[in-house]
Amino acid sequence: MVKIDIEGSSSFVKAARYKDFEAKALDAFDTLVAGNGAGNDFLGWKHLPSQTPEDMILECESIRDEWNKKGINLVVVIGIGGSYLGARCAIEALSHNFAKQLSSAGKSAPEVVFAGNNLSEEYLAELMDLVVERNVACIVISKSGTTTEPAVAFRIVKKYIDEHYEDNSDRIVAITDARKGALKVLSAEQGYRTFVVPDDVGGRFSVLTPVGLLPIIVAGFDAREMLKGAAEMEKALSEKSSDNPAIRYAAMRNLLYSDCGKRVEVMVTYNPKLQYLGEWWKQLYGESEGKDGKGIFPASVTNTADLHSMGQYIQEGERILFETVINVRHSNRSVTIEKDEQNLDQLNYLAGKHVEHCGAMARLGTKLAHIDGGVPQMEVSIEKIDAFNLGGLFYFFEFACGISACTLGVNPFNQPGVEAYKKNMFALLGKPGYEELSATLKARLNG
Amino acid sequence: MVKIDIEGSSSFVKAARYKDFEAKALDAFDTLVAGNGAGNDFLGWKHLPSQTPEDMILECESIRDEWNKKGINLVVVIGIGGSYLGARCAIEALSHNFAKQLSSAGKSAPEVVFAGNNLSEEYLAELMDLVVERNVACIVISKSGTTTEPAVAFRIVKKYIDEHYEDNSDRIVAITDARKGALKVLSAEQGYRTFVVPDDVGGRFSVLTPVGLLPIIVAGFDAREMLKGAAEMEKALSEKSSDNPAIRYAAMRNLLYSDCGKRVEVMVTYNPKLQYLGEWWKQLYGESEGKDGKGIFPASVTNTADLHSMGQYIQEGERILFETVINVRHSNRSVTIEKDEQNLDQLNYLAGKHVEHCGAMARLGTKLAHIDGGVPQMEVSIEKIDAFNLGGLFYFFEFACGISACTLGVNPFNQPGVEAYKKNMFALLGKPGYEELSATLKARLNG
Repeated sequence: MVKIDIEGSSSFVKAARYKDFEAKALDAFDTLVAGNGAGNDFLGWKHLPSQTPEDMILECESIRDEWNKKGINLVVVIGIGGSYLGARCAIEALSHNFAKQLSSAGKSAPEVVFAGNNLSEEYLAELMDLVVERNVACIVISKSGTTTEPAVAFRIVKKYIDEHYEDNSDRIVAITDARKGALKVLSAEQGYRTFVVPDDVGGRFSVLTPVGLLPIIVAGFDAREMLKGAAEMEKALSEKSSDNPAIRYAAMRNLLYSDCGKRVEVMVTYNPKLQYLGEWWKQLYGESEGKDGKGIFPASVTNTADLHSMGQYIQEGERILFETVINVRHSNRSVTIEKDEQNLDQLNYLAGKHVEHCGAMARLGTKLAHIDGGVPQMEVSIEKIDAFNLGGLFYFFEFACGISACTLGVNPFNQPGVEAYKKNMFALLGKPGYEELSATLKARLNG
Repeated sequence: MVKIDIEGSSSFVKAARYKDFEAKALDAFDTLVAGNGAGNDFLGWKHLPSQTPEDMILECESIRDEWNKKGINLVVVIGIGGSYLGARCAIEALSHNFAKQLSSAGKSAPEVVFAGNNLSEEYLAELMDLVVERNVACIVISKSGTTTEPAVAFRIVKKYIDEHYEDNSDRIVAITDARKGALKVLSAEQGYRTFVVPDDVGGRFSVLTPVGLLPIIVAGFDAREMLKGAAEMEKALSEKSSDNPAIRYAAMRNLLYSDCGKRVEVMVTYNPKLQYLGEWWKQLYGESEGKDGKGIFPASVTNTADLHSMGQYIQEGERILFETVINVRHSNRSVTIEKDEQNLDQLNYLAGKHVEHCGAMARLGTKLAHIDGGVPQMEVSIEKIDAFNLGGLFYFFEFACGISACTLGVNPFNQPGVEAYKKNMFALLGKPGYEELSATLKARLNG
């Protein structure tokens, strides 16, 4: 189960002010539960863990089984933003650190690679170098089917699949709008199987919908355990209480932002597999809170590597930071440090110890050093890295985000600023309908 | 050649104040060139590009050739911080996006994997899963030979190599101190080939020493071209002038920090291969400037993926940000968007266009949107991603960092804050000599 410890921040704040922010967070909790705040059309994620239909999971599993039977060994998952980061985060967290490089002997699931999340020509060309070597299927995720990045990638991958496989329409699954849009129309025409991106779940809250679950299941991981972990968390967070971990996290981070001049929250992990948990979390919090000129800037580091990189800044730079540390209490694997007769490296004092013990002491030592340096800490801990605990983490951060953004006083569920670059890009690319803006922008660029 | 454009920031600052900061940066230039500022014992990196001895490169190349002859297909590079990020950045930038997954047919160089940069038990266990499948060599990088993370990994990898190969000492190369330290002693005893970590080059400035060059060469890339690009940049930056790109970058970023309340600099790339350029740059600037309670917090994003993640915050969140965009002017590969009769995805207006053209318009559109949103921009552009241009980028950012930190008024070349966590970690791990601190810390943790 996910636990939270905010003691590492308490010396930085006044207890009475914490009570104030706790009260605000408790109010935000009511708003979120009642669904009567800003953005209340987008609260479908709240009950996904406990209300995910068995049918949908079964259908994902049957696609997995069918593709395994066909010997498919590469699945290209096409999507951007929330249609990318959740699945990538889960698959990286649950995969072997060297999954990509290990020999294929004994691999029971296809490899998942991601596309449609950039406009790099090299990336697409090189993706196709890999595709031609493999037995390929594709999951394309787009509510409209016209978002530029995924649409460009899908044109290319679809053409390849159409030209190379007679069972082409069995090799493409679309996750899209329930009723309308380019991808929905195409899927009906081509006979693709489809899943629905629910209308009431925003991209960054969609990891527990088919958007995240189908790629995770196809990659060979246990989505049922993930939903179980999330459902336990849904239950654990359902009580209005000052002990509710989501309340505590939301209250403390808003207090640090409001009273202590903290402008940057650094998510700290000690396990390379969790690098994309940081990326997923940055989207969740940055996009939910970064609006109206407000919001904590989310950043992430992977220690201990980054103790030898960003560590200096965190210890002694501008005092605008606080840290949220992900503590994984147990390792899934075992390596102990062996005694060495010569002991030139002076490590024999650690002989017999687990490597993870050293990691834990690095984490604790860093905690104390950073607190001494003026950096408040919170700690979110899980038992180990597995589907169950990851599901709990996903739900914890989502629920806490709803409360936190509401405490801050912004709409947690919109992202009006994302349109600005798109509009300009369409105009500069000469998309029909953008002629006027195009002329204005070109004049600015040439001026 | 690397170019810089600071026009995207000019509307945010007063011209007279820019002149003030330009003057400060020109003074800092003199200090850096004369070598009479703080940290002047660590200026060896300044002339590496033009003064790298041919012998050293030849020795690296002969190791590469010898290992290729042995059929070595995995090189474990053990190092942390500056002994990790430079090589990783270069190898990721220059490798195929899917190098790890492509079939081995035709691969002319061994794969490089990194270790010793974390204390994750799973990572080490899983590294050994890969090692046992391969024909392995190791490059171990540590000035002292006793830094915990690399020492723990090296004990494990060394033991494996010793037990499995008769030519074990030919398969390990050490990059370490010229005269003293555990790794130097061990290398002499075991007959390892060694390279020197120069005394006057700090870790984060060491990518053009053997620390970076040997892994890059062994991975099959052209270090001579990289040094050539760096040497051209060394020459281009040698002139004291207000047009010097390093002066302009240093002046503008310090002005944005000093006068405009900008606290976070976001390095923006549009090519997934450059993700670790961001990591390398964050260490370089964060560790050089983040001290004495000062410094710009360095962050990085990979667009267009992150336009659908951090994009919202950058567009509309706290106005404490500015961006430095890496613009790669040409792609190494070619993919055009083809016409589709149906055009359901509405992309036909792009038919015949290169994907990179869309990327460029996304970049320009984003630039204008972010400037309109209150985010100043600078742009650093290179011709394409290759060894030559990467060498230029490395040197540009190093030289500009020396000037910028000096303009800020801190010692660019020390990192006193990195010791704080180490001391605590040693105490908590029970290292001999730390008994007193250990008791204090344990009392704090239990209190």
